[in-house]
Amino acid sequence: MSVKVSVVYFSGYGHTKAVAEVVAAAAQAELISISSEGTLADNDWETLNRSDAIIFGAPTYMGSAPWQFKRFSDDSSKIWAKLGWKDKVFAGFTNSAALNGDKFNTLLQFQTLASQHAGIWVGLGILPASLKASSRNDINNLGGFSGLLVQSPADAGADEIPSGDLETAKLFGKRVFDIAEKFVK
Amino acid sequence: MSVKVSVVYFSGYGHTKAVAEVVAAAAQAELISISSEGTLADNDWETLNRSDAIIFGAPTYMGSAPWQFKRFSDDSSKIWAKLGWKDKVFAGFTNSAALNGDKFNTLLQFQTLASQHAGIWVGLGILPASLKASSRNDINNLGGFSGLLVQSPADAGADEIPSGDLETAKLFGKRVFDIAEKFVK
Amino acid sequence: MSVKVSVVYFSGYGHTKAVAEVVAAAAQAELISISSEGTLADNDWETLNRSDAIIFGAPTYMGSAPWQFKRFSDDSSKIWAKLGWKDKVFAGFTNSAALNGDKFNTLLQFQTLASQHAGIWVGLGILPASLKASSRNDINNLGGFSGLLVQSPADAGADEIPSGDLETAKLFGKRVFDIAEKFVK
Amino acid sequence: MSVKVSVVYFSGYGHTKAVAEVVAAAAQAELISISSEGTLADNDWETLNRSDAIIFGAPTYMGSAPWQFKRFSDDSSKIWAKLGWKDKVFAGFTNSAALNGDKFNTLLQFQTLASQHAGIWVGLGILPASLKASSRNDINNLGGFSGLLVQSPADAGADEIPSGDLETAKLFGKRVFDIAEKFVK
Repeated sequence: MSVKVSVVYFSGYGHTKAVAEVVAAAAQAELISISSEGTLADNDWETLNRSDAIIFGAPTYMGSAPWQFKRFSDDSSKIWAKLGWKDKVFAGFTNSAALNGDKFNTLLQFQTLASQHAGIWVGLGILPASLKASSRNDINNLGGFSGLLVQSPADAGADEIPSGDLETAKLFGKRVFDIAEKFVK
Repeated sequence: MSVKVSVVYFSGYGHTKAVAEVVAAAAQAELISISSEGTLADNDWETLNRSDAIIFGAPTYMGSAPWQFKRFSDDSSKIWAKLGWKDKVFAGFTNSAALNGDKFNTLLQFQTLASQHAGIWVGLGILPASLKASSRNDINNLGGFSGLLVQSPADAGADEIPSGDLETAKLFGKRVFDIAEKFVK
Repeated sequence: MSVKVSVVYFSGYGHTKAVAEVVAAAAQAELISISSEGTLADNDWETLNRSDAIIFGAPTYMGSAPWQFKRFSDDSSKIWAKLGWKDKVFAGFTNSAALNGDKFNTLLQFQTLASQHAGIWVGLGILPASLKASSRNDINNLGGFSGLLVQSPADAGADEIPSGDLETAKLFGKRVFDIAEKFVK
Repeated sequence: MSVKVSVVYFSGYGHTKAVAEVVAAAAQAELISISSEGTLADNDWETLNRSDAIIFGAPTYMGSAPWQFKRFSDDSSKIWAKLGWKDKVFAGFTNSAALNGDKFNTLLQFQTLASQHAGIWVGLGILPASLKASSRNDINNLGGFSGLLVQSPADAGADEIPSGDLETAKLFGKRVFDIAEKFVK
């Protein structure tokens, strides 16, 4: 029996959605979109409950995930009260306009949520490309560790995300799938 | 001319409101309540814009401030884009049922928001009471530094917050007022 | 073949050592002590390299792990450069005099180190005891999630650590062992 | 009487030293170098005690400041025990090879240290340059908020730090001086 992965994300302007799709394809995951009101459909909660691994995705707004993602997190407290997601594998990715832009803090928010749910956290697992010759077309050029970092400049469309970040997204999705499979089988 | 301090908070069940009132009294501050939908009235935004110091307050839910507080943070991005709150003094407090309960992370969220707004951060400024004889009636018995920590057990009413935490709240409010006055005068 | 767990820790005054011993017994782990100069013996590095799971332990001094632990972390950069610890299971615990005392930040330091090493992070996995009737003799009374939190008052000896924290340490050690076994088998 | 600022830093390979010199010149600050053993001279401690503002500087190694900086932090616990640095202005900067590279976490370590010392924290205070046309020659191209971020690729010498980061360092130093002056006068 195959492992079941879900990507639950909020996207404000389509960039995070584009990344979520790349991650989900590589992780063989079901895509769950958080609505503009921060809600999920009932069957989305059931999908998450049945998942072996859950990947969180959101942009970084004002230093952390948008309120819609937080509303989803708050709503998960009913599950938390019974540790309903115990021992699931968790991972996360975030996108913002600046190279750095406090993205670490959004990943920390995801990690902390996963720990509250008694989960297992998987990071990016790839060394950074940080030489003088490195470019935004390289794998993990941003240099993330606890999760996947993506940058899309403030005036860039969802189709203009640096190719290196999207390649990194593929490897990240595959990694979460592989770890979940190793853990669950 | 006197210094102007505001306390902007979200309270889910009344405990954070009780703390906010103690802090505000000591800081000679105006109280601004974030609604259950995460919104402020227009004149509340004007009050914040005119404030010399802004104190953030929220419980810790699932490892960070509730979505209503985050919605307020996200909505402040319009002000951020013009650095409209630059050089204001900021501080924060949080409350949760557990002694620790990832409260540090909520204060970090507040600090990060303040830094994004180009503000000045003031912590608690009081050594912890951490001896064997120390009790929940002592000043800073929880041992916070970057802000005020309050605990109210899961089955305690808003009138059952430990007296030491409320005394700490008074000193914290006074400290923010004093620092703001020193900074603004 | 059984799973191999190591506990690598620095203890300043014996309290963290006492906790490390409890954790190690429950995790069937080898104990590795970081010296007062922040060094390990060569065969200690080999033990870590052969481990399926590594548990970090240190007190919280001035808001993070002591310099001796950081020296160990810095020295692990040679292993990092080849991702020699990739996919190992990691976990962590910290002790300080205050109930809160920025212990979250030390666990974050451990988590970040684990993510840099491309590891898998396991938290405490236990709901907090946070009712009015809860006491320091209860399991997870401090309310930690991303790892094990222990408090020993500033004037308490290593034999005076609250019994609830030590019981939590046992469950934490067992959890890391179980997760490592599930992951490695 | 003029305001007194100090920059206390550790540099492993000269890059952080180069940044420290730029920051110090702009902040009219005294430069204090932490030795390769993590120690300061006695008169350096006196200089810090007399300072109105203290700027922390260090590279990010394995996700936080090097052990030498941590040893300095741990040694400051004697001052902490009497809150000898209360109400000083604090700020910080960090450098690493990767664009992101968990630099946020090093700034968090600095902020937390400052809060333990009952200090006032000043961030960068500059909006990021995060458009498609933005380059590493722009002010705050990395997009830091809680402090100054600098990147120097793994194979770049201390004379090859991006010009935009050095320009940002100047503005950061000036900002800390100005805030300290406003606060102290």
